[in-house]
Amino acid sequence: MKAAGKHRWFVPDAYLPAESSHGLESHEAACLLNVSDEDARVAFTFYFEDREPIGEVALSLGARRTRHVRLDRADELGVELPRGTPFAYAVESDVPVVLQHSRLDTTAGGYTLFTTIAYSE
Amino acid sequence: MKAAGKHRWFVPDAYLPAESSHGLESHEAACLLNVSDEDARVAFTFYFEDREPIGEVALSLGARRTRHVRLDRADELGVELPRGTPFAYAVESDVPVVLQHSRLDTTAGGYTLFTTIAYSE
Amino acid sequence: MKAAGKHRWFVPDAYLPAESSHGLESHEAACLLNVSDEDARVAFTFYFEDREPIGEVALSLGARRTRHVRLDRADELGVELPRGTPFAYAVESDVPVVLQHSRLDTTAGGYTLFTTIAYSE
Amino acid sequence: MKAAGKHRWFVPDAYLPAESSHGLESHEAACLLNVSDEDARVAFTFYFEDREPIGEVALSLGARRTRHVRLDRADELGVELPRGTPFAYAVESDVPVVLQHSRLDTTAGGYTLFTTIAYSE
Repeated sequence: MKAAGKHRWFVPDAYLPAESSHGLESHEAACLLNVSDEDARVAFTFYFEDREPIGEVALSLGARRTRHVRLDRADELGVELPRGTPFAYAVESDVPVVLQHSRLDTTAGGYTLFTTIAYSE
Repeated sequence: MKAAGKHRWFVPDAYLPAESSHGLESHEAACLLNVSDEDARVAFTFYFEDREPIGEVALSLGARRTRHVRLDRADELGVELPRGTPFAYAVESDVPVVLQHSRLDTTAGGYTLFTTIAYSE
Repeated sequence: MKAAGKHRWFVPDAYLPAESSHGLESHEAACLLNVSDEDARVAFTFYFEDREPIGEVALSLGARRTRHVRLDRADELGVELPRGTPFAYAVESDVPVVLQHSRLDTTAGGYTLFTTIAYSE
Repeated sequence: MKAAGKHRWFVPDAYLPAESSHGLESHEAACLLNVSDEDARVAFTFYFEDREPIGEVALSLGARRTRHVRLDRADELGVELPRGTPFAYAVESDVPVVLQHSRLDTTAGGYTLFTTIAYSE
């Protein structure tokens, strides 16, 4: 399929809740889609309220593939992000991709999801 | 009404939870709107993390109609999508349409909805 | 403030749940914002899966005002929308406005919100 | 990083629930991201259904920083917003930024989040 998406994506509201319940770990996922026929190299930069950004963290995303990157998994992401701390992130890709950001929050016996297509340009 | 929307839409975060509760099956819906006076032919392509895409799956959408396509209903969609597996999808339409993606997750005794207008171009 | 927004807005996933709990009625709201110095006249059209659209339903939105229009209140909206039925809607405005769509679903003892900025052009 | 975002952002559906549960206060956050190398001055204006807007309320946002502004904290925001009252807001920034709006609602024993990238131009 013809490539679709943008090279730069931004998510201002990222947060890994410190607590979990329901036997499901609170987490966030940066869900990427690359419909093109070229593999993509994507680079994450993480922003905080009171310190300099962390990054770039480079990941690969195959041609004609999606990848739902768990932001709470240091082994998958290559960097350990703090829980209970507001942050934000940017994703830059050499091939146009699409980014959707989602959170599962099971704090305090709750169980809730949110999602949004990220901001792109 | 004058046509509105785009020909290509993308949803990176699709997922059919394996579990349900509350007497309501966990599901996702691809909600399409065609405000034009022409019937639309829409084609879904489904993307995965570790295998080639499935599709195109063709559906019709009448002029001046909405259609909330349940992604967990193989009989309605014409293809069986796996539960408990991250995926993504693209929708292409011959007439401009609008796509909004929603999930109801009732896993583990939870009850939560999310939604977003899909990414278009 | 200088006007902001668009003249045409679209929401494909509208649905008024038939059930409620928690002492809070399941509902949807079409939340409009008019930051301009001119009153706006907005017109809703409602789309269904299996019948012709309903509308236009005209409402006013003052200059420098927001209005969170409850879609389940026939007295406020001027039309009775069915519960338990998938629908969609379009909003046209003579002045640029912004539309965000939200649902509170308290079906089956659940309690969940979703929201998205609508699609505009 | 090269600046990204827009100078004007709009959120039609703002609401601070009057009730809370789960030991977590119902609230909203205006999550801002400034990836540029210049500090930003952002100005909030709050819109209501039946009275003139409040503002501008000026806040700072450092270069390469995110800020998750709690709308229920008068000491942080510099203005006291009413609970249990529909409102909306606009954010103007001298440097391009990105805005995502989120709510945590723990009314009536519920626990739910919603989010959306705001509308920009």
